[in-house]
Amino acid sequence: MIVSRACCTFGPEEPFVRTTIERRDPGPRDVLIDIAYAGICHSDVEHARSLRGKTVYPIVPGHEISGTVSAVGAEVSRLKVGDRVGVGNMVDACGKCENCLAGLEQYCSGGRTLTYNSIGRDGKRTDGGYSQHIVVDERFVVRIPESVALANAAPLLCAGITMYSPLRHWKAGPGSKVAIIGFGGLGHVGVQMAKAMGAQTTVLDLSPEKRDDALRLGAEDFRLSTEPETFTSLDSAFDLVISTVPIYVGLDRYLGLLARDGVYVNLAVPAQPLSISATTLLTNRRSIAGTRSGGIAETQEMLDFCAEHGISAEVEVIHADGIDDAYRRLLAGNVRFRFVIDNTTL
Amino acid sequence: MIVSRACCTFGPEEPFVRTTIERRDPGPRDVLIDIAYAGICHSDVEHARSLRGKTVYPIVPGHEISGTVSAVGAEVSRLKVGDRVGVGNMVDACGKCENCLAGLEQYCSGGRTLTYNSIGRDGKRTDGGYSQHIVVDERFVVRIPESVALANAAPLLCAGITMYSPLRHWKAGPGSKVAIIGFGGLGHVGVQMAKAMGAQTTVLDLSPEKRDDALRLGAEDFRLSTEPETFTSLDSAFDLVISTVPIYVGLDRYLGLLARDGVYVNLAVPAQPLSISATTLLTNRRSIAGTRSGGIAETQEMLDFCAEHGISAEVEVIHADGIDDAYRRLLAGNVRFRFVIDNTTL
Repeated sequence: MIVSRACCTFGPEEPFVRTTIERRDPGPRDVLIDIAYAGICHSDVEHARSLRGKTVYPIVPGHEISGTVSAVGAEVSRLKVGDRVGVGNMVDACGKCENCLAGLEQYCSGGRTLTYNSIGRDGKRTDGGYSQHIVVDERFVVRIPESVALANAAPLLCAGITMYSPLRHWKAGPGSKVAIIGFGGLGHVGVQMAKAMGAQTTVLDLSPEKRDDALRLGAEDFRLSTEPETFTSLDSAFDLVISTVPIYVGLDRYLGLLARDGVYVNLAVPAQPLSISATTLLTNRRSIAGTRSGGIAETQEMLDFCAEHGISAEVEVIHADGIDDAYRRLLAGNVRFRFVIDNTTL
Repeated sequence: MIVSRACCTFGPEEPFVRTTIERRDPGPRDVLIDIAYAGICHSDVEHARSLRGKTVYPIVPGHEISGTVSAVGAEVSRLKVGDRVGVGNMVDACGKCENCLAGLEQYCSGGRTLTYNSIGRDGKRTDGGYSQHIVVDERFVVRIPESVALANAAPLLCAGITMYSPLRHWKAGPGSKVAIIGFGGLGHVGVQMAKAMGAQTTVLDLSPEKRDDALRLGAEDFRLSTEPETFTSLDSAFDLVISTVPIYVGLDRYLGLLARDGVYVNLAVPAQPLSISATTLLTNRRSIAGTRSGGIAETQEMLDFCAEHGISAEVEVIHADGIDDAYRRLLAGNVRFRFVIDNTTL
C-alpha cells in the first residue's frame, strides 16, 4: 500500500485541505505514476461542489493527469520507469463489450471506472489527480510525447481529447467550416486542432477580450454571441458546431448556424434539458449530437497529433493552496486557459 | 386559363365545400395533370385547421397527388400525354442554390414553392391536390411505375418519400436495426421499405391493434410504447429510430433506444420544443436529426424502389363529400392507413 499526499474537500461548500490517501500496490499490469501536474477541469468543480448531486465526500478530483512512471508491474510491457505519461477521465472499463472492443471505452456498456468519484473493480472509491501518485492499469495510461511539456499536456487528457474526438468523428478538415462556441479550456485547444486538421474555424464567445487569443491560436474569425447580427450573418454557415458551454436559452439560434447535414455537438451537461425546435432541425437536415471524451487509442493519437503540430494547452500553474481560488476564478471565467496544479506543492 | 373543380375550406372550423379554382395555361415547360387521387396527409389537417397558424383562406390542400398527363408545353421533353405521374409537396424551387444543384430541392435556400398555401414565382398562392387538375413544371413531376396503382401511389409522394429519404440517408440495410415510432400513414410504408432494404425493423405504437398489420408488412417485432418494459428491454438496441409522431413527454426514453452512433430522426413538428437530456445524447454518441421529405430525383428513385419491391400505401378511398369526416377520423387515429380522395367525385 502506498501513502500519497492529496488535496480533498469534505463538502460542497468546504475548502480544499491537505490529506493522505492510499493507493494500491501495483498489480502485475499496473503502473505507478508520480503525478507532476493535474489540470482543473470544469467538471472537477461540478463534482467537488456537488452540482450534479452525486458526489461522495471526501473527494479528491482531477482527471487531467501528467507525470512520470515510477514503478511497473511484472506483466507491464508497454511502459517502463521514467516514461512520461498521462491519465484522463477513465482508469478502467470492461474490455469485453462491443464499444470496448471497438476502442471506444468511453461508451463501455459494461461499466467504466472514472478516475475519481467512481467505484473501481475492487469495490473501492477512486481518487483523482490532485494527489502525489496514482496507480492505473497500463491499458489506461498514454504516453506524452517529449515535445509537449507535462504542465501543458495535462489538460489535453480531458479538454484536449473531448475536442479532438468530435472533430475527427465528424471529419473536420480541408473545406469544412467549424464553429466553436466558448473559448475556454476546451475551446482554445479545439481551435488549434481544427486549424491543424485544415478546417476553417470561427469562435463564438461572450467576451470581446477573447478575440486576440482566438485569432492568434488559429481561428479565422471571432464573433460575439451577444450580438444578434452574429446569428443572422452566419445563418447556415457551418458543417460542424461544437459547443463547449451550456446553453439554456436560444439554442435554436445556434442550431441555425448549421449548413445542410451539419452537426451541432453539445459537450456541456446543463442542469436543464436542451430545448430544440423540430423545425430548426428539419431545415437543412440538421443534427444535434453528444459525445463523451474519447477512447484510449484515440487519446494517444491526439497527443501524437498535438506533438506533431505544436499544439498544447495554455496553462496557469498554481500552488495546491490556490485550488479554491482557482475554482472561483474558473466559475467567473477568469482563466487563460486552464489551471494546472503543481503537484509538488501538495 | 383552366377552370378546375376543387374542395376548399374557408376557415379553421369551416367544413370543406366545393369550389372552382383557376390553373394557369401550361407554359413551355409545364405539364397539365388530370388528378386521379389526392392523399390526405396529417399536415393537410394542420394547414386546413391552421394548427401552425400560417394558413391563408380559402385553402385547397393536398400534396400527395397521382394522375395522368393531359397536356404538355412545347419544351417538355421527359413526359407526354397519357403518362402516369405524381406530384409531392413542392412544385418549384430556385434551381440554383447549392442544395438544388445537389438534387436536394427540399432544402432549397432560395425559397421553395410548396404545393399549397405557398406563393409561387408568379406571385399567386398555390392550390393543392384536392382539385381536378394541376399545372406543374415538369422538373417537379415524377413518373408512377405501371405496377403501382394510382390510388396506392398517391401517399407515396409525401408519406413514402418522407420515410424513404431518412432510411437511405442513414443507411438502413442488412445488419442495421431500425425502429419506427408510430404505425400510421408514414410508418406502414416505412416498415415495408426498411424490410426491402434488408434492415431488421421494430415498430413501436400506442395501440395493440396495430400489431398484426405491422408484422404482416415486414416488422420483425412490435412493441407497445405504453409499456415501460419496452424501453428497458430495448435500451441501446437500434442504429436508427424514426419517429413519425410528435412526442411531448419522455423523449429521452426514445433516445435511449439508440445504440452507439445511433440517430433518432424526428419527422413530426410538435407545437412544443423537443426536450432532451444532454446526458442521454452523450451516452453512445447519439444524435437527433430532422429531415424534410426528399428531393425530386430521390422521389423518383423511391417510386421505382416501391415498384420493384411491391411496396405501396394501403388506402381507404373516399368521396369528396367525406373529407371532413376523414379529418376527424385521422385525428382520432382511425384509418388504415391513408385516406385518398377519389378526385372524380369533386
